[in-house]
Parts: sequence; C-alpha cells; structure tokens
Amino acid sequence: MEGAGGVDCLADERQKARFDVDEMKIVWGGSRHAVEVSDRMARLVASDPAFRKDNRNMLSRKELFKNTLRKAAYAWKRIMELRLTEEEASRLRAFIDEPAYTDLHWGMFVPAIKGQGTEEQQRKWLPLAYKMQIIGCYAQTELGHGSNVQGLETIATFDPHTDEFIINSPTLTSSKWWPGGLGKVSTHAVAYARLIVNGQDHGVHGFIVQLRSLDDHMPLPGITVGDIGMKFGTGAYNSMDNGLLSFDHVRIPRDQMLMRVLQVTREGKVVQSDVPRQLIYGTMVYVRQTIVSDASVALSRAVCIATRYSAVRRQFGSQNGGPETQVIDYKTQQSRLFPLLASAYAFRFVGDWLKWLYTDVTQRLQANDFSTLPEAHACTAGLKSLTTSATADAIEECRKLCGGHGYLTSSGLPELFAVYIPACTYEGDNTVLLLQVARFLMKTVSQLGSGKQPVGSTAYMSRAEHLMQCRCSAQRVEDWLKPNVVLEAFEARALRMSVACAQNLSKFSNPEEGFAELSADLVEAAIAHCQLIVVSKFFEKLQQDIPGKGVKQQLQTLCSVYALYLLHKHQGDFLSTGCVTPKQASLANEQLRSLYTQVRPNAIALVDAFNYTDHYLGSVLGRYDGNVYPKLYEEAWKDPLNDSVVSDGYHEYIRPVLKQQLRNARL
Amino acid sequence: MEGAGGVDCLADERQKARFDVDEMKIVWGGSRHAVEVSDRMARLVASDPAFRKDNRNMLSRKELFKNTLRKAAYAWKRIMELRLTEEEASRLRAFIDEPAYTDLHWGMFVPAIKGQGTEEQQRKWLPLAYKMQIIGCYAQTELGHGSNVQGLETIATFDPHTDEFIINSPTLTSSKWWPGGLGKVSTHAVAYARLIVNGQDHGVHGFIVQLRSLDDHMPLPGITVGDIGMKFGTGAYNSMDNGLLSFDHVRIPRDQMLMRVLQVTREGKVVQSDVPRQLIYGTMVYVRQTIVSDASVALSRAVCIATRYSAVRRQFGSQNGGPETQVIDYKTQQSRLFPLLASAYAFRFVGDWLKWLYTDVTQRLQANDFSTLPEAHACTAGLKSLTTSATADAIEECRKLCGGHGYLTSSGLPELFAVYIPACTYEGDNTVLLLQVARFLMKTVSQLGSGKQPVGSTAYMSRAEHLMQCRCSAQRVEDWLKPNVVLEAFEARALRMSVACAQNLSKFSNPEEGFAELSADLVEAAIAHCQLIVVSKFFEKLQQDIPGKGVKQQLQTLCSVYALYLLHKHQGDFLSTGCVTPKQASLANEQLRSLYTQVRPNAIALVDAFNYTDHYLGSVLGRYDGNVYPKLYEEAWKDPLNDSVVSDGYHEYIRPVLKQQLRNARL
Repeated sequence: MEGAGGVDCLADERQKARFDVDEMKIVWGGSRHAVEVSDRMARLVASDPAFRKDNRNMLSRKELFKNTLRKAAYAWKRIMELRLTEEEASRLRAFIDEPAYTDLHWGMFVPAIKGQGTEEQQRKWLPLAYKMQIIGCYAQTELGHGSNVQGLETIATFDPHTDEFIINSPTLTSSKWWPGGLGKVSTHAVAYARLIVNGQDHGVHGFIVQLRSLDDHMPLPGITVGDIGMKFGTGAYNSMDNGLLSFDHVRIPRDQMLMRVLQVTREGKVVQSDVPRQLIYGTMVYVRQTIVSDASVALSRAVCIATRYSAVRRQFGSQNGGPETQVIDYKTQQSRLFPLLASAYAFRFVGDWLKWLYTDVTQRLQANDFSTLPEAHACTAGLKSLTTSATADAIEECRKLCGGHGYLTSSGLPELFAVYIPACTYEGDNTVLLLQVARFLMKTVSQLGSGKQPVGSTAYMSRAEHLMQCRCSAQRVEDWLKPNVVLEAFEARALRMSVACAQNLSKFSNPEEGFAELSADLVEAAIAHCQLIVVSKFFEKLQQDIPGKGVKQQLQTLCSVYALYLLHKHQGDFLSTGCVTPKQASLANEQLRSLYTQVRPNAIALVDAFNYTDHYLGSVLGRYDGNVYPKLYEEAWKDPLNDSVVSDGYHEYIRPVLKQQLRNARL
Repeated sequence: MEGAGGVDCLADERQKARFDVDEMKIVWGGSRHAVEVSDRMARLVASDPAFRKDNRNMLSRKELFKNTLRKAAYAWKRIMELRLTEEEASRLRAFIDEPAYTDLHWGMFVPAIKGQGTEEQQRKWLPLAYKMQIIGCYAQTELGHGSNVQGLETIATFDPHTDEFIINSPTLTSSKWWPGGLGKVSTHAVAYARLIVNGQDHGVHGFIVQLRSLDDHMPLPGITVGDIGMKFGTGAYNSMDNGLLSFDHVRIPRDQMLMRVLQVTREGKVVQSDVPRQLIYGTMVYVRQTIVSDASVALSRAVCIATRYSAVRRQFGSQNGGPETQVIDYKTQQSRLFPLLASAYAFRFVGDWLKWLYTDVTQRLQANDFSTLPEAHACTAGLKSLTTSATADAIEECRKLCGGHGYLTSSGLPELFAVYIPACTYEGDNTVLLLQVARFLMKTVSQLGSGKQPVGSTAYMSRAEHLMQCRCSAQRVEDWLKPNVVLEAFEARALRMSVACAQNLSKFSNPEEGFAELSADLVEAAIAHCQLIVVSKFFEKLQQDIPGKGVKQQLQTLCSVYALYLLHKHQGDFLSTGCVTPKQASLANEQLRSLYTQVRPNAIALVDAFNYTDHYLGSVLGRYDGNVYPKLYEEAWKDPLNDSVVSDGYHEYIRPVLKQQLRNARL
C-alpha cells in the first residue's frame, strides 16, 4: 500500500528484492481474503479525515479522551451504515489504532458473558451488548491485587431474604483498579468478587453489575467510579479510561452472577454445574493467542519504520564527495535490526499456530478430552510471555536504531512503545507466566520414565535419552542451515536445562522451597522451551507449500536468522549444557553474518509485505516513499511552541533574566 | 531524607539493616561536604511550592514550556539572592529536575567558549554569559548529520573584503536540528560549520552567532529558528526547546570564530595555534564523565522506587489468612532487582574514578604529555556507552518490577525513562562509541609484542601470555568471592575476545572491510573490556579505607553481585573463550543466589543511602514512608477526566450510541 505520493527514494531498494512481495503479503496476512479485507479496511480508515491521528500528541488528556469517544461513535456508525461483517468491523477498529472502551466491550465483556454465562444469561445480555445498548467492561484487578486473582478482596454475599448478592469493597486495596472503559464510559461491568454463601467463601466468580444509569449516566447508588489518571506516554493508553471502582453494599439480583460453571440456587445452595471448569483455560488460550498475534503486529510496525529509515539515512563513509553509506549497510545495524525482522515473521507464524491450537483444544474439550489442556495452557502462557517481552524490547531497540530522530513523537516509535508495553503485564505478568510453564515442565520431566508420554510442544522430551547425550554434528558453516541440526540443538538445550533444574530441585526436602529458591533458573529453562516452540513452528511453516517466486527461500533465510540469533544470544545455555562446542557456536555466528548479507537486498520488500498504510504506521521516518527529511521539517513547524515567533513567556521570564531585572520580578 | 509524615510501613524494613546508613550516604555522595550541600539544596527545592512538579503531566506543551521558563528564572533569582556557590547552584538546578535551556547554557555554551575560545574571546563573552546577559546554546547536529560530525554541511565562508564569515545552510538537511535551548530561548549559539577560506575546506569549527535581538528577541535577519516538536513522553524533554536553525548567508565578524586551536587572520591565512588539538579530547572526557555520573543517579532513582515498592507490595503466598508475601522476597524479583541496585553503586564508583581520570589527563596535557589520552578517551567513550545503555534498560526493568502500577505516570518511572533515554544517543551514539573502543583495543593488541606497554585500563593486556592460557581456579562456591579469581576471569575474557577479533581481522586483506564485517563481534569485545573496567574500579574502591559499621561489607556484597551477575548474563563469553568451565559458571551462579539473601535485609537501607527527597523521586510507589495505596487513590482523583462525574462528551458521543441515535448524529 503506498504513501501519498512525493519522491520515492526507496524505489531503488524495492528493485533489489528477489521475491514476489504480493505473495509474501498473503503469507503474512494468512490468506488472500484476509489481505483483501485488511486492505479495504485500512484504506477506509486512512482516507477518512475523521480518523486522523497525527495530531494526537498535541491534545490534553480531556481533549484526547473526548476525541476517542467521537471516533468510537463514528466507527460504530460507519460499521452499521456499511453493514460490515464482524471480521471487517474488527479490522476497522484495529486500524483506527487508538485504545478505546470498545476494545474491552468487544474483547472482554462480551466474551466473559459468552464463556461464563448460562444460555439464559446469554439470551438476556448478549443482544443488549451486541447493539451497544449497554457498554461493558471487565473489572477484575484491584488496587492491591493484580497477579493473584485468587486473592481478590471484593466480596459478593448472598442474601437469601431478598434473593440478591451484596457486592462490597471492604478495604481501600479492594477497589477495582485498571479496568479499561470503566472510568468514564461503561454502564455495566463483569465484576469479580469472592462468593460468600452462608458465611462460606466459594472463591472468585464473575457478576454482572450495572454501574451507571442508562438515563443520565450517573453512577448508581453505592458505586464510586472514576479514572485512575495519566499513564505512560502522550496519546497511547491515555485515550482509555482505565478506571477505579468501589462498591458500598451494592445489591444485584441473584441471576446476575455468571452461573455457567457454578450456580447459587434460590435456597442458597452452591451447585457445581456439569460444564467442566477447565473451560476457563480454553478462554485463556484464546485471549493469549490474540496477544501473540498482536505482538507480531506491533513488532512488525516498529521493524518497518526502522528498516525503511535505515535505508533512507546515510552516515559516514562518503568517498570522494559521493553520498554517505546507508546505515542499513552497516553490520552493526544489520545484526541488531535483521533478527527483529526475523522475529516479526517468527511471532506471526507461531501466532497462526496458536490459533489452530485453540480450535484443537476447543474441539477436544467438547469431546470431554482434557488430555492436551495443561500442555496447551503452558504453551500459550509461555508464548504470551516470550513474544510480548521480546516485542517491548524490540520496539525500543528499533527506536534506538533510528538515532536521535526516533525520539521525536513524529517517528511514531515513542507512541508504539508506550501503547505496547502493558502487554508484558496484563493477562498474566510475564515472569509469573514463565514460572507456570516451568512448573509444567518440571512435572513433565518427573513423569518421563513413568510411561506417560509427553504431548504437543513437549513431545521432544520423549526422546530424552538421546537428547541428553547427543552431540551436535555441525562441522561447517553450512551445517547450521540444516533444520535438523538447529532443531536438535534447541531441543537438547531446552531438555537439559529442564532436567538440570529438576535435579537441583530434588536436593530440597521441601519442593516448594526449592522451587522458590531456584525460580530464576526455572524461568531460564522455561524461556529455552518456549524459544524451541517458536523455532520449530517456523520450521513447520516451511514444510508447507508456499507459492510465489522466492518467497519460501526468504522465509528459510529469516527462519535461520531467528534461530541462529537466539543461539548466539543464549550461547551460554548451549555451551554450559554441552549442546554445542565453542567452535560450533562460532561457526553458527559466521553463518548468521552471511545470512545478513542475504537479507539486506530484500529488507525493504520484507517490511513492505506487512502491507501497512502510512496512516496506520503513523511515522515520518517510516513513510512508504522515504521522503523523510522534508516531512520532519514540515511536522516540526506544527508544534504549538511555533505558533508565535517570540515565545509566550518571553516578557515575564526571559527578558527579566537578560536585562538583569529579576529582583522585582513576580515569578 | 524523610517523606512528609504519614504511616511508615517501611519502618520494619529499616530496622533490618546491618550497616550504618549515614556513613553509606557519605560513600554515595562522595564526601560529607557534598552530602551536606545536596541535602540543603534538595530541601530548598522540595520546600518551595514554586518548584512543584507533580502537576507536570497535566500541562499542555505550551503550558509546560512556559512553566519551565518560570522555574528557570525563579531559580536564577534565588541563586543570586542566596549568593549560592557554583557547586550549590549546580545542585539546585539538578534537584529542580526538569530539562531547561539553562542546562545547555551552563553545560555546553559556556564550556565551549572556555575550551575553544582564545583568552581574548573568553574575556569578551564569558562575563556576558556568566551574568546571563546573553543565553547560549550548542548548535552542532544537523537534520541529516548526528553521529558524523565531520560530515556537517553548514558552511562558514571567510569574506576577506569585509573581514567577516558568511554562515550558510546550503541544504534542508544542513538545518541545525536538536540543540537544546535553541528553539525559543537562546540569543546566541556556538554553531559548528565547515570553515571555507579561499575556496579551501578546513573542516568543522565553532562560531559564535547571535540568533535573536537582545531588544525584542526577534530572530535576526537570515536566521530561521523554531522548535522541532514533541518528544518521547509527557513532561520529560518537552520542557526543553530543542530547536532547528538555518542560516541564509548570515554575516558575523571574523573574531567570532572560536580560535584557540585554529586561527584565520585578517589576510585570510589559516594558522594552527600552538595549543594542542588534543585539548578537545580532554573536554570530551569531561562531558562523558558527567554522563556516567548522571547514569548512576538515574539508575539509583529507578532502583529506589522499585525496591521500596517491592517491599510494600504483597502478592500470593498468604498462609492461613495472614498477609501475603512481600514481592521483594521472591527470588525472581531479587534476581532482577538486586543486580540493578549493585549496578547503581558500580556506576557511581566508576563515575568517581572518571572524575579523577579527567583531572589526571588535564594535568598531563598541561605538561605536554599525551601518552594516556587515547586510553582515557577510549575508556570514557566505552563507559559512557556501557552505563547509559544499562541504565536505560534498567529503568524500564524497574518499571516492570513494579507490576501494572509502574505504568502510571504517578509512579514516576515513565518520566524517568523518557527523560533518560536520549543519553544513549547524545554525545556519541552508543554503538558508534563501542566501535571506537574496539578500534583502540585492536591497536593495543597489535602492539602487544612490540615493546609498547599498554597503560591504564588496558594495563592487564601486558599479562597477555598468562591471561591467554590461565585456568580459573574456582573450585567451591566461596571461591567466587575472591577478588583475584573474579578479576582474572574478567581480564581473561576481555583479552581473549579482543585477541580473537584481532585474529579474525587479520584474515581480511582489507582491514577496513574486515572491521566492518566483524563489527558486531568487535562491539562485544569492547563491552567485555568496559565491564572489566567497572568491576575492577569497584574492587579498587574496596581497597580504600571505608569507615562506618558494616558499610564496607555491604559494598563487598554489592561488588560480588555486580560481577557475578555479569558473569551469568555473559556466560557465553566466559565459556566460549574457556575462561571458566560450565561447572565453575554454575558455582558462580549459586554464589550469586546466596548473595541475594544477604542483600535482602539491607535493600531498603541501601536505597535510603541515595538520600533522595520524595520531591526529587517524584514517585507515589517510591515514597519514603511506603504509604503507597492511599496516595495512589488520592492522585487518581486529580486527573482532569474526574473533574465531572458524567464525562465531557457523554451527550455527543456516548448517549447516541446507547440510545441507538447515531444515524443523524454529527460526529
């Protein structure tokens, strides 16, 4: 998709590509249909001045928020006028590219009712939500409780006299805190609270609570609600009304407890339904899969900006007065940038695979087969952690790769970073998630001789005997292009790290104490396992039939770049476990260098394949046409400080300094 | 320094400390005198409502900037009223904690004239600058040239007819871009331009150019000047008028070229003065030393916030309804946080040493001894790169260590990050600097058998024969506490990586090509060398007489934490060069774990020793009294979105959605 005309100083770069970019777009987008829909929705947003976002940084919090309300209403209007499908509407919202209460309404409130509500509850609430006659949010975390959901303090006490629940916030720290859309917009919430029936605590459950009047939007009696204040960055999540909420003995009818899994009867009996509790894990697999997919989007945007600007920017190396060297030609730039480009593709494919995994798990659940659930759960938790941490770091690295100009908001990178980083914390803190993966790995290792076969992403552990003693066969630089050589090294590393942890754990008489003491090592073992998954899914992708001239070859190169970059970065793991020798590690690094040379001519086309409009990219440095400097200059003059030639404040605060007249100045 | 009363839920923590905190404050501050001055200036700022900064995030760019102008003028007024010394004034400005044009006036403009001006020029310009009758900035980088100073495009052509220079910006990319204080305030600039005399290019030199009228502040004829626009974050560097500037044949008298090193005579002769050109490197050593010192400040602020909040915050692990576990007790938290705490101290001491190095180099230069200059230059370049990169990453890591609440601006961490990260780019891009270090290391290695002894921080290379073949003697966990064991491992690793690079370079027929091809490896070798310097300076610090109960022991622990953390993080280097065995690396890691247990009870006191006021820290999470949650709640209500109960925009943009009345709405 092209920028808005102007010179095209990247045209030469595009000539260099040795593969079919349009076919690569389809690989990236998932299907010809998906690319077509995205394309159409992206253009719809980009061409409509109502969705302008380049002025976002100049707005105050209030203006920004009001503008987001306007865009959300306008988008909803367009969705109805154009009778967009669900897929189209979702793409449209994504391209508007501004966090809004609708994200939570569609992404959390509706799914929570679908997943946890009875059929009757769904019949009652979903039509209202689908038409947005009510707007909902997902009120789980509290001021004092983020990660530890089971420790939530909000209480829902059943009152058998009135057939109601009394929702109450007993402490300051039990105030709901963070839910998006809660602060100023939502009329309803799915609020999580400890269910108390007959004095007994039945754990945390969800309740539909109306927060605001549908007449005048005033908070209902007993409800204290507001915005939690400014967050990281200009723009970014400040367009969202993350909120706080406390309940002062708020009464709701009994049937507003989401009762698909657990029911409270009129008589105050607590009854487990026949719906398996494990269903909630299915939902977590779904949500985290979308997060992995979003990681590839955020990362690819940053990489697209940094790659294009690295080709535009020149520095040093002018010979005989000729042009300087494009910074993308420097090996230091390549060795930082190209692994991130490869990571974007790697995360895309592992995200696609997770989508499949979710379908698979759902089908099995419906057939009462829970056998793969723990593995699928560990897998998505780990990949959520791995991809979001890597993406957050990578966006900042891309900013640094743009030199000083990456620090300007007009580069788009500060906003991309600020808006992305919460992904490392929400839906499971990344470290907490890796510890869950580690726990699962330790269990799998402990069962290894027991006859219970490890499944799915842990299947490699069934070859433990071989992997514990195999030696890497790489003898020449080229050997590191062989999938089996690379895969075996990653498998051996992951297994040996897990086994080493298990052995060290066994030295503790109290296993929980051991787990706590060794948790830093366990996290590293979990990372090794997750990296293996990403690498192996990339290799699996390459097994598929991929049409288009040179497309598969490019992906092979990127796959090798990703794997060998990880091997170099985590060399310590591979060497300390004896999976590769120092000599072999050095050969791998040599191969990696030569792969960079192969990526170089294709780099611009590889980021063009992400198919982002200039509107969506929102970056002067990443413009499709590469016309960076004139546009940077133009952008600068739009700053409010340039409204007047002589600065506002000159007479009060600059002139008295220069004229030595501060003594009597009022400051 | 204590917070403003309230509960003190960190009091218990402070009881646990096993060392004399007041003595540690003196170690951190450098001297009893320095601590006393800092203390006094910090209180002066904290107690004066004119320096309030907690409302910074709510201001628009214009308001923020005007407020900064006010603070700068007010500070100057107070400095004069109180007749503050230069040291006091500088501390005062630091505690105001807001980037302002005065930073550049005092930190770059005045030093440039001092360093590059003749005595006559200094006599003319310095008194004006000292009294702020003129305000100056440092106009070097251009839109198209940051790193490559020698490639600047601005031109200063000598006109022998009028005895003037004609300063001109021949292209768009030659516009000055980034200089702080330039955009809206400075009356003068030291502008860098290519000196052209008689058609010949004499390279880049500095010129004093008046930009704005001293009467009405209007730009002078031929001068186009303005602000370059918004930058990363709210607040942060948006209080600074980083500017753009272009010259349209602006004429200045010949004597406004800074002529200490090179002179242009009335007749148009270009004459080298007898002042050694190397003097500029002395200035670079000075500036970069202050950057290293600033890194320890920024890092220690982030660590202070994360450490205190980690002791306040509890999550999981409640037993029998008792309180949950403080997150600082989790090993995963400790293994991420304590190395950063140790790094803050490490960077502090290496900064102190660089201060000494600058004095030493200056004295030698005055005695015409240039022998240590290349080493000192490489050393400061490398340490600037190492400490700023580590600090930028560490601030973000500290934010993540605070969980979700670190994302709120009231945590102080987003601002700290946004305001700090330019340090990775300014005064030398960090990668470019490491390549300079690598170049110096390659030269040093190549001269190893030549009889030329390596000096200063490279002195260890004189023991090359031993270091290339020595084997680490660590056999037990405790051996990793021995300074000589640790140091030798770091020396061997650094040397072997440099030697390996040199050997690989020698395989190239064209050395420059080899240097380019291997630059990623060279960067890693440079990092290894710089880390060795930091570790060895920490050990040297421990050789000193350090009074105070338990103070030295704490520092020994921190030193070991820093070194062993690096050893673990860069295990791949140590293993691949055969400096330690996998078994030894594992012992080191075990020792590191047990050191964390020793740090734990002292952690709060170790951050108290930084002696920061709550005003300076600017963080609800990092409050001295630990009274976090009530204050977070209080802060939230200050957000402008909470001005009204029903949100601004409800009637236009929310009600029509809920009431299905969008069709005719004007959005």
